[in-house]
Amino acid sequence: MKAEIMGIGTELLMGELTDTNSSWIASRLPALGIELQWVSITGDDLPKLTEAFKRGMERSDIIFTTGGLGPTQDDLTREAIASALEETPVIQQEVVDDLERYFAARGTSMPQHNIKQANLIPSAKWIINKNGTAPGWWTERDGKIIICMPGPPGENRAMWEEQVEPELANLIEDEVTITRNIKTMGMSEGAVDEVISEFFGIENPYLGIYSKADGIHLRVIARAKDGVSALAMIQPVERAIHERLGPYIWGYDDETPEQSVGKSLTERGLTLAVMEMCTGGALTNAITNVPNSISYFKGGIIAHEDTTLSATGVPKAEMERYGVVSQHTANTMADTVRRNLNADLGVAVTGVPGPGEFEGKPLGLAYISVTNGHQTRELEMRLPPRQVTIKRRVPNQALIELRRLIEETS
Amino acid sequence: MKAEIMGIGTELLMGELTDTNSSWIASRLPALGIELQWVSITGDDLPKLTEAFKRGMERSDIIFTTGGLGPTQDDLTREAIASALEETPVIQQEVVDDLERYFAARGTSMPQHNIKQANLIPSAKWIINKNGTAPGWWTERDGKIIICMPGPPGENRAMWEEQVEPELANLIEDEVTITRNIKTMGMSEGAVDEVISEFFGIENPYLGIYSKADGIHLRVIARAKDGVSALAMIQPVERAIHERLGPYIWGYDDETPEQSVGKSLTERGLTLAVMEMCTGGALTNAITNVPNSISYFKGGIIAHEDTTLSATGVPKAEMERYGVVSQHTANTMADTVRRNLNADLGVAVTGVPGPGEFEGKPLGLAYISVTNGHQTRELEMRLPPRQVTIKRRVPNQALIELRRLIEETS
Repeated sequence: MKAEIMGIGTELLMGELTDTNSSWIASRLPALGIELQWVSITGDDLPKLTEAFKRGMERSDIIFTTGGLGPTQDDLTREAIASALEETPVIQQEVVDDLERYFAARGTSMPQHNIKQANLIPSAKWIINKNGTAPGWWTERDGKIIICMPGPPGENRAMWEEQVEPELANLIEDEVTITRNIKTMGMSEGAVDEVISEFFGIENPYLGIYSKADGIHLRVIARAKDGVSALAMIQPVERAIHERLGPYIWGYDDETPEQSVGKSLTERGLTLAVMEMCTGGALTNAITNVPNSISYFKGGIIAHEDTTLSATGVPKAEMERYGVVSQHTANTMADTVRRNLNADLGVAVTGVPGPGEFEGKPLGLAYISVTNGHQTRELEMRLPPRQVTIKRRVPNQALIELRRLIEETS
Repeated sequence: MKAEIMGIGTELLMGELTDTNSSWIASRLPALGIELQWVSITGDDLPKLTEAFKRGMERSDIIFTTGGLGPTQDDLTREAIASALEETPVIQQEVVDDLERYFAARGTSMPQHNIKQANLIPSAKWIINKNGTAPGWWTERDGKIIICMPGPPGENRAMWEEQVEPELANLIEDEVTITRNIKTMGMSEGAVDEVISEFFGIENPYLGIYSKADGIHLRVIARAKDGVSALAMIQPVERAIHERLGPYIWGYDDETPEQSVGKSLTERGLTLAVMEMCTGGALTNAITNVPNSISYFKGGIIAHEDTTLSATGVPKAEMERYGVVSQHTANTMADTVRRNLNADLGVAVTGVPGPGEFEGKPLGLAYISVTNGHQTRELEMRLPPRQVTIKRRVPNQALIELRRLIEETS
């Protein structure tokens, strides 16, 4: 089944709001065997919306929409569908009752203009919204389906998970798509591409390659009658990737570097401390994005200048001799913070913090050190001279080096 | 001029990546007087992309694209434009040279297949990419413009700001739209709405109200023949907002709380140190996102448990008496870090870090303290019990409290 998603709302076109619903819905479709072909954003404009629905009914089997279901005059999703299908909306007492209950539960009564949300056309049934006033619409006509959900992500996701996805799963039984995402770091996109080139250009299983802030990702997608057959198609490609890129692989599917590290630490009951210079807390912030990080993360010290570094236990004489931005200082920082905060492992990054040079060294130069007190992994990085890039890439690399040290030594 | 934006990439259709470029570009268009009519996402599929460009050339004056400019086989933006315009791409030595310089600066040589990024068709000129290997394309044919930028947001935004926007501004001269964004914190959306209600519902100047992680934003948009007239339309609304909401305003336009604080500190030559518990580095990370933060930021200590707090100088006896999560400990932390790192100002946040309760206190409870050693501002927050929400909202609030302390005391 071919699908499209329409994000509806002038605020999306004005850039006041980023449409996060579309990518979220998109991520749920492959497992249902629904093939997403188009995503578009349309403003709150009746003729444009009507045209968009007419075009959608021609090119897609399912249209998902988000937004435009509110009570105000510029919410026109319902009106546009009625117009595209040439049907007339009628107020449904059942929906009015539900809306009135919704407001009553909040100690207030339904404002008059919310009654517009109780409209349905003959081809549509309503989808209950437990988290807001806008009911969804599930419309079927001429073998096509239009599913309208509210715009606020909280309402949207709850409606999708509780009502839309289960009903879609009942409906669709023909084909399954399975995706496997394999994440590497340490080889360039071009080099990875070359090593496994014979798998590119095949439609099923499809192999994609993506360059991300946390390395090069390989994605294998297989379609088949059932999950077992789809997995069997993925296996040979995955095996080849493992054989040829094994040491560079650090994670799978949705895993982030901080989750991968968290898993390794938790499995072994190890704890971690961090000292950062040049990444300004980005590494510590990533680590604590893992919900249970409190169980293994001891703390972080973010030094933004050498006086702070010495205030936190790094010997000033050493920094003067080797430079703050040096592998030697990175190693000292990692071991110092490990000991001071009583952790099993220490990670440190030091580099040119920007905006300009530092110690005569260029922006983009950084050193990573990870240590358990006995073994240490060191790395020098030379990145494009942008502070944003450094804050994004150095923490990921440091986490992956840390994971490698843990895997190597236990 | 009517415009559309095309996000290009199968990963966007698969929901693996959220397209944040489109909304960012969308937000820049009103000020240029460019009217955005459509946003769409298309996969890495040559026939579909070609069709999308043909349709775009019919319905829009300008097409902006992001993504699909990489070196691999599935990067097809260039190929699709060539196919839609029926022109033949030719390798440009000048671009090859630039690519080779890019790789050489990183101590490596250009992989063979990157040469594809040096292609141009006769109607296109290239746009230098200082932050990556993918040059942009600026194509003009039959009075229409296609502007292709790379997908990674860092590369995309730099190219937009340094090259695309200035060139567009030269090109477009008919109507000007000016936007003024006024940011408040401390009043609810409903209360702000009531105080300035008479300005809502007018088309030009338009007043919008938005609830964000850093407070309630008011946006005034005016369209006129020239900048002076548009500004004159904005002024009375802005003046009323100032009169009625003055003490709650903390910033303007694109300013973030960390930029607003950075400005206040820089103007007064003051320095800052931070201690965080429960926000795990999010506050420090925000502060160091300001490019010149090195000039005023002394450092941060991220304590993830009470033993770490005491290792960094907070007296254990006090924490036992008052609790780690208390206003008293927040105040002690702020003053301790201020003194230890030799800063003029100290900011501390302490709260329940999650995932569950802590000291019998609920997730969502947090205390903020900002001090200059003489005056202190305190704040208790009770947020929804979600770690993500806490990491987003507590740092913003702490920064705004800090700014208030600086403004009050100097």
